[in-house]
Amino acid sequence: MKCNVVAVGTELLLGQIVDTNSSYIGEQLAAVGIESHLQLKVGDNLARVVAAIRLALQDADAVIICGGLGPTHDDLTREALAEIMGAPLEHNEQIAALIADLFAKRNRYMAPNNLQQAQVPRGATIIEQTRGTAPGLMCPVGEKVMYAMPGVPHEMHDMLARAVLPDLLRRSGEASVIKSLVLRTWGESESALNERLDPIIHELESLGNPTLAFLASGWEGIKVRLTAKASSDTDADALLSIWEQKVRALTEDLVFGTNTDTMESVVLNLLEERGWTLGLAESVTGGLVGGRITSIAGASRVFKGGVISYASDVKFDVLGVEAGPVVSERAAMQMASGAQRVLGASVGLALTGVAGPDEQDGEPVGTLCVGVAFPNGQTFSTHSQLPGQRDQMRQFSVITALAFLRKLLLSEPR
Amino acid sequence: MKCNVVAVGTELLLGQIVDTNSSYIGEQLAAVGIESHLQLKVGDNLARVVAAIRLALQDADAVIICGGLGPTHDDLTREALAEIMGAPLEHNEQIAALIADLFAKRNRYMAPNNLQQAQVPRGATIIEQTRGTAPGLMCPVGEKVMYAMPGVPHEMHDMLARAVLPDLLRRSGEASVIKSLVLRTWGESESALNERLDPIIHELESLGNPTLAFLASGWEGIKVRLTAKASSDTDADALLSIWEQKVRALTEDLVFGTNTDTMESVVLNLLEERGWTLGLAESVTGGLVGGRITSIAGASRVFKGGVISYASDVKFDVLGVEAGPVVSERAAMQMASGAQRVLGASVGLALTGVAGPDEQDGEPVGTLCVGVAFPNGQTFSTHSQLPGQRDQMRQFSVITALAFLRKLLLSEPR
Repeated sequence: MKCNVVAVGTELLLGQIVDTNSSYIGEQLAAVGIESHLQLKVGDNLARVVAAIRLALQDADAVIICGGLGPTHDDLTREALAEIMGAPLEHNEQIAALIADLFAKRNRYMAPNNLQQAQVPRGATIIEQTRGTAPGLMCPVGEKVMYAMPGVPHEMHDMLARAVLPDLLRRSGEASVIKSLVLRTWGESESALNERLDPIIHELESLGNPTLAFLASGWEGIKVRLTAKASSDTDADALLSIWEQKVRALTEDLVFGTNTDTMESVVLNLLEERGWTLGLAESVTGGLVGGRITSIAGASRVFKGGVISYASDVKFDVLGVEAGPVVSERAAMQMASGAQRVLGASVGLALTGVAGPDEQDGEPVGTLCVGVAFPNGQTFSTHSQLPGQRDQMRQFSVITALAFLRKLLLSEPR
Repeated sequence: MKCNVVAVGTELLLGQIVDTNSSYIGEQLAAVGIESHLQLKVGDNLARVVAAIRLALQDADAVIICGGLGPTHDDLTREALAEIMGAPLEHNEQIAALIADLFAKRNRYMAPNNLQQAQVPRGATIIEQTRGTAPGLMCPVGEKVMYAMPGVPHEMHDMLARAVLPDLLRRSGEASVIKSLVLRTWGESESALNERLDPIIHELESLGNPTLAFLASGWEGIKVRLTAKASSDTDADALLSIWEQKVRALTEDLVFGTNTDTMESVVLNLLEERGWTLGLAESVTGGLVGGRITSIAGASRVFKGGVISYASDVKFDVLGVEAGPVVSERAAMQMASGAQRVLGASVGLALTGVAGPDEQDGEPVGTLCVGVAFPNGQTFSTHSQLPGQRDQMRQFSVITALAFLRKLLLSEPR
């Protein structure tokens, strides 16, 4: 089964928007074992959209088209599909009613051009919208098929998972329920993870289902994604569960969560379970840890605040760090205790290090010292040498410090 | 003049990497008035790379190809170019020597496959590398031309500006020096900026040179980019200078810098000029302002640190805010004075607001109060209603607060 992709929109060619849609679709197709050999971007010009779709169809069984389904005169995908199908566009009363209803519910005036979105090429099947106005379309051409979806990413993601991928799999004679599971890891490089999982990767490559992929994403850690095809939800879950156990068996020390978990959400949850609050002392990261934590709505149940002790005298005067080198495990522990005291928090977490461009106190760029102070007065520290330039080093510092706190919370008595 | 783009790499089709190269190239082509109607992604397969380049050439005068010039067996762009030109690949001794020299200088072992990068189709012109190993290639095919560049973005950006765009402009009979100037603005939406600059935009559209584009970029503000073509550097600068003055005349209150300036770098410079230091008190942003400021190397000359006063009792106990609503201009000013005092800073900057999802103290989501305390004891405050969900609101809070401080620094006596 081969499926190519056409992204429609002059703004994509002009670089005003980066085409992330076709990358997303490519990734999803690969996850279920469908090949994609050609992906095109084309502007809002009818003849050129038609030509691009024909090109993409030539060497494939199916084409996915994104964009050009909106209500303006620039939205030409419906016309292009009708032309390729050799079919007329017809007004669909049901879609028109749905769109009118949506505007009425939101108390907004509906400009008449919105009804352009109710035009459907004869012979097409409608993919229902659940998040916007323009429905998607499935259009047969001979033995092949064209799928058209809106260019708005969250509308497209939904239709792809709900309708397009299942239909593609049905056509290829395969089971059509697709489910993914992401294991979130931290502590090893992608190549080291790859090595650990080598036996599983080989086994999966010969089986073809589920598939396994690595997604490295900076201070999000490295994601290991399993994607299973099955004939029912239950079967897909069962398959994922088997392979999740196998992956975990080789990486348990690295897995900190699944799916939408983040290191900061996991740490906040562990603290909340214990009824503990958190205070920060940040030097090298200058507020990045606090910024990440407070990106989570509800962080205020656990997070008291922080002291950004960038200048050394703030470490000494506000946090009570004793004179001496400020990039050290000793200073990190004293910063953590200081944050705990000053902010009235159960737990203190502190970071001090060297982001560069120059070394500091004889410590090289990339040095990170993390300190933690626990409610019982115990303090802990660790020392790492992180890779990367200033920005990357600071990002890695955030997840490294939170990961250290997580391990302590899991291993220490409450 | 029409120029299409082909991005080569299986990883692009699989969505492991988003193809930002062709967006960048599309933007640069548009800036100098060259049309691009079709942009393709194709995998590392010789027949398919050849077919994709032929397709892209069909309806254009030129094609830019990115990627596939490296040393591995997957790098097939050179072979594809030779096939399309009907010319043999030849070993180029000069390139080979340069590559060997590069490895020697870095004290690294050169695997023999690196010399694959010294293969050049007969008839091609070499685009010298200044940042990596694989040179670029200019390959005539009949009256048309193919440009091949590495897929590494900073190598590609350099070759595009230095060799490819000038050659394209020479071929189209136009002056071939291209220079851009970016005016950084904050304080108006893109549509309001557009309206203000309407007379200039119309004039430029009829002239065609320079071009003007808006680039909206979150907490970076909105960039107004002028791109000029001329026959010499001096002429390009002169042309840019004329239009910079015209744009500034209509937007002077919004322009905070040029090119690589950021709001945080501009504010740090203003403070440094006055010999002043900065202390922060962050509530709604939770450390994001500190994180931005400390992303600048050398921030320590001005930035003392901050207090992330997320919990109300940190505002009261650490910063000395008086009892009462904490999302208020009064609280923001007291937070700023508190930060100044606690951190021993000349200037205090404070943010308190409501990021959502729920309202707070009867203030709606999007409310931001900013407070500033100056060395002479004067305090200032402002109140805004920002758009967007949690993340966007917090990003806008950062630039809004820094912009407020900038205006005060410019208007108040030192």
